[in-house]
Amino acid sequence: MGEGDARITLLTDFGTADGYVAAMKGVIASIAPGATLDDVGHDVPQGDVLRAAWSLSRYWNRFPAGTVHLVVVDPGVGTERRALAFLADGRFVVAPDNGVVSRVLTQAERWSAIEIGVGPGDRSATFHGRDVFAPAAAEIHHAGRDRLASVRRLAPTANWIDLRLPTPTLGADEAHGEVLVVDGFGNVITNVPGATVEPHFGETVRVNGEVVPVRRTYGEVDLGERLVTVGSHDGVELAANQARGDEAFGLDPHDPVHLAW
Amino acid sequence: MGEGDARITLLTDFGTADGYVAAMKGVIASIAPGATLDDVGHDVPQGDVLRAAWSLSRYWNRFPAGTVHLVVVDPGVGTERRALAFLADGRFVVAPDNGVVSRVLTQAERWSAIEIGVGPGDRSATFHGRDVFAPAAAEIHHAGRDRLASVRRLAPTANWIDLRLPTPTLGADEAHGEVLVVDGFGNVITNVPGATVEPHFGETVRVNGEVVPVRRTYGEVDLGERLVTVGSHDGVELAANQARGDEAFGLDPHDPVHLAW
Amino acid sequence: MGEGDARITLLTDFGTADGYVAAMKGVIASIAPGATLDDVGHDVPQGDVLRAAWSLSRYWNRFPAGTVHLVVVDPGVGTERRALAFLADGRFVVAPDNGVVSRVLTQAERWSAIEIGVGPGDRSATFHGRDVFAPAAAEIHHAGRDRLASVRRLAPTANWIDLRLPTPTLGADEAHGEVLVVDGFGNVITNVPGATVEPHFGETVRVNGEVVPVRRTYGEVDLGERLVTVGSHDGVELAANQARGDEAFGLDPHDPVHLAW
Repeated sequence: MGEGDARITLLTDFGTADGYVAAMKGVIASIAPGATLDDVGHDVPQGDVLRAAWSLSRYWNRFPAGTVHLVVVDPGVGTERRALAFLADGRFVVAPDNGVVSRVLTQAERWSAIEIGVGPGDRSATFHGRDVFAPAAAEIHHAGRDRLASVRRLAPTANWIDLRLPTPTLGADEAHGEVLVVDGFGNVITNVPGATVEPHFGETVRVNGEVVPVRRTYGEVDLGERLVTVGSHDGVELAANQARGDEAFGLDPHDPVHLAW
Repeated sequence: MGEGDARITLLTDFGTADGYVAAMKGVIASIAPGATLDDVGHDVPQGDVLRAAWSLSRYWNRFPAGTVHLVVVDPGVGTERRALAFLADGRFVVAPDNGVVSRVLTQAERWSAIEIGVGPGDRSATFHGRDVFAPAAAEIHHAGRDRLASVRRLAPTANWIDLRLPTPTLGADEAHGEVLVVDGFGNVITNVPGATVEPHFGETVRVNGEVVPVRRTYGEVDLGERLVTVGSHDGVELAANQARGDEAFGLDPHDPVHLAW
Repeated sequence: MGEGDARITLLTDFGTADGYVAAMKGVIASIAPGATLDDVGHDVPQGDVLRAAWSLSRYWNRFPAGTVHLVVVDPGVGTERRALAFLADGRFVVAPDNGVVSRVLTQAERWSAIEIGVGPGDRSATFHGRDVFAPAAAEIHHAGRDRLASVRRLAPTANWIDLRLPTPTLGADEAHGEVLVVDGFGNVITNVPGATVEPHFGETVRVNGEVVPVRRTYGEVDLGERLVTVGSHDGVELAANQARGDEAFGLDPHDPVHLAW
């Protein structure tokens, strides 16, 4: 697969008013002129690796094989943290070694990891997005899956940071979990597997003691009403129809969630 | 017209931090790998169909024929509302049947409407943007104007929701209208036709009792001063030079506007 | 160089909810159907020419030769200000004549300026981004560097507005400068050349009387701690590790900065 045949997506927490993302795009366009660049977003809350991990988990495998996903949410920039690339089910993810790929690796059937060599000059740079990650993404895109070995500064690796999401406690008629992420709509994403509530669609469960309907879609409850549902990420989600679930439930990231049915 | 020859634009209220839009892009790229994706924006206020309708009206016919415009501002997701595609003056608009296409249909010389079949599995999904609208847009893009019949799940339809914008009352020397939309600059867009004030460029009119100059461009009044002008949408617009017209006039959407000259 | 071989980037202060940027994209796509459009950003604070100039300076020469950079941050829209195009080190910048290109011209090795003819009909338009700048960018892209003369409405020019950034006063052991721009991260960009503090990496300097470490990267100080560094723009930058430098230093644009070592 050569340049021009695949896409490169970009997810960062840089905002777009200051030209930092555009500098990355320019570097990519200079190395891989035919690359199609698709923005994911650049408004991840600064340094919020978990939110970025969740975002990435929603789109990485929707793109065709050969796509290179570049993720630069990197509170550790300037430290010794490594730059990695993963080849997961045919798609690449280029990102700092800070756990942002964790969700992808629980979703992928097979993957391998590659460390991206960072020279001394690169390491001292304040802008790794432009000077380390963008060139790596462009070179991997340019080489393609079948000729990865031709990219000089890649080396296989077998260890990387895992976000170690908190594990829920599942009982016969209850689950103790916690809030992982609140998305931009206010949907509350928990670590409780969707399979726990799926048998209860059309019924109710208790959420932190209060009775809430379990429904497949928001539209099945009245405007503003709360519901328990299973998000497109296959986890239990606490939401409200056309309203913010986090406010309706009074929940923030890391808060405990107790479900009983 | 085959894939790669035309563009697909995207307008949503999803924000971009959570990967929802990127999931749609991935679905499109998987069906129509050569498609060029152009973001319109993803920060329409959540569920604000009228604002999205106005936005769409500004760009749909600026793109070349064959362009597919995907609009997912969809407060009725999960209900029985249909998914539609319009072919208007050679461009496609794929959107929920909630009136967001209304302005396009007043601007287009000719159009036809197509209902997008939504299977039972799709209907229960919480994410129609990814599972219904994005595939439909990609398939229409892939087929192109001349082979629309080859897209299995399209069927002609003849009814759809119209936003039924309030009608202004026009007199010989006055107009009673209302505020439809306030854009991101604070420009106040009314339902009064631009033709009513165009004879008065260079003069003044009364806006809710106060004398305001009528000018072709903002720069014709002093910094911060108010003006009445005709927007690029051909409606009367209440604005201020390098300031927010909504604040300068004290007007919000749905407020009455009385013009007298 | 013909259409399809080069990219067009877009930087504006229009926001993206209202379809104004998309109208520009549509105009470009109609004139240069094969053009690849790369968003820089559309959330420059409204009318902030200096912020846009700084943004542009970060990416313009990262893109390959032939790229057309379209910048529409234009508080003077509707006045007599001219529309210009610059050819700088092989890249084009199409922008209003308001100084937004100033930084590029200090960075480029060679450049020439071209005035874009604006007809009387264009001049009266309220939306120059769509009616003047976008068509000019598309036509320049379409013609390419070698056939610029074929674009009818271009004429060489030799004068344009320079932002005239304040000049710092540099002494043997001190520098008096000021804050130029605060970026979205809160990084404080000053007009003091990076060369003044580079000999002091690993040491400290006094910033407005307080002792602050000089470091190459943010990660070399503790979380939340302040540092003096040299930004990717080669100017002295006042920052804080994973925190906002503007708040940590109590500095806003135009505030004086005194450095002593």
